[in-house]
Amino acid sequence: MARKNKSRGGHNPNRPRLWGKHAVAAALDNPERRVLKAWATRDAAGFMQFPPGLPLVIAEAPDLGRMVPADAPHQGVVIEVEPLEDLWLGDVLAEAPERAVLLVLDQVTDPHNVGAILRSAAAFGAIGIVTQDRHSPPESGALAKAASGALERMPWVRVVNLARALEEIAEAGFWRIGLAGEAKDDLKTALGPPRVALVLGAEGPGMRSNTREHCDALARLPIGGGMESLNVSNAAAVALYAASIA
Amino acid sequence: MARKNKSRGGHNPNRPRLWGKHAVAAALDNPERRVLKAWATRDAAGFMQFPPGLPLVIAEAPDLGRMVPADAPHQGVVIEVEPLEDLWLGDVLAEAPERAVLLVLDQVTDPHNVGAILRSAAAFGAIGIVTQDRHSPPESGALAKAASGALERMPWVRVVNLARALEEIAEAGFWRIGLAGEAKDDLKTALGPPRVALVLGAEGPGMRSNTREHCDALARLPIGGGMESLNVSNAAAVALYAASIA
Repeated sequence: MARKNKSRGGHNPNRPRLWGKHAVAAALDNPERRVLKAWATRDAAGFMQFPPGLPLVIAEAPDLGRMVPADAPHQGVVIEVEPLEDLWLGDVLAEAPERAVLLVLDQVTDPHNVGAILRSAAAFGAIGIVTQDRHSPPESGALAKAASGALERMPWVRVVNLARALEEIAEAGFWRIGLAGEAKDDLKTALGPPRVALVLGAEGPGMRSNTREHCDALARLPIGGGMESLNVSNAAAVALYAASIA
Repeated sequence: MARKNKSRGGHNPNRPRLWGKHAVAAALDNPERRVLKAWATRDAAGFMQFPPGLPLVIAEAPDLGRMVPADAPHQGVVIEVEPLEDLWLGDVLAEAPERAVLLVLDQVTDPHNVGAILRSAAAFGAIGIVTQDRHSPPESGALAKAASGALERMPWVRVVNLARALEEIAEAGFWRIGLAGEAKDDLKTALGPPRVALVLGAEGPGMRSNTREHCDALARLPIGGGMESLNVSNAAAVALYAASIA
């Protein structure tokens, strides 16, 4: 898929460091990913498939520990990378099959949540996720670890204007379902169209009103027990599952 | 529900500090929860319903920030509490309705995951969660925040021996379904019995073999896309949803 020839340097001046076996192996496997340097314990260097020519420093686990956030489970391997080139929404939509699920996140900022959502999106066969550039986390080790490889595989489109993106998504034939706790319809009822965009807001505020107005339907997850909502990655996983069996 | 008259001091020598509006409001609402002391900003003290007689210190937000882990979103309120008294599995089983879902976690240790799982369990109407005492997180601010009130509402049974607990669960008429990526049957196929115990292992290792042997059926979530698994709280949410619509 073509990537926008634009540097994300402005948002992410540092080259992200990825760590953890799954995240690093997936980055090494991704032809779109530029890996600049690697650090690994002797053990990890034995089983990781580092390409010839990649600068590799053999280090002790505690040295790796100092390169990553405190208590980050680096599993003996850290790499420094360039962020992926941006994708165009139009390209992702153009390549969508007849039946497709797209995930749209409105200002979900927690990297663990976004990482887990990428992982679930890949697992349930979504064609991509769309976030607003300004209110979504940059690539990071924590996000990549939570994504467990999906950061490299799941098309992730960052857009400047989410309302405009939702218009483009509708033009491509997607039925836009916004998840909202106060909606009357159950998600199961709202599902059905072959192309669906599931729109989720941040926990607490939910979708912004302009995002909500750009949905074709609002629907709720069938929850109760005095709980108003789920963790956003849990809600996304349930919605993706529900769409996958609809 | 009766609680075991046993101190959890051995596992959790410090009195946990809970923070965040939802977690604190739920603790204050819980008659089983002993709240010892509160700290709040003047603003938060205005809208939190602190009971008369609770020692309350008005503090500035940065002072609260120093009482909780770095970057913890305390939202202006912190309380110090006694951990909840332990529950007996037999009591939870005895009070189970004819149709019931119980969640069993085998060595899931991350407090954010366990908190999010409590939240989803409450939201989807599970009757309780069961963990092994030695390999589950203690009550903490991070766990309570992730649970968004559910720590106070969701019966959480800690047992010494999970295999023995699974026997007791079977004796109470629960069909024990272990989630395993390599299982042949889809979870949807395995669901059906009115009383179901969903058993989930830790990410990576999955269920221990002795836990697995104490399940009546193994089932998988319908995932693909090169992903071997979901985040454990995402998997639990999907399984709870699937059970709730079965």
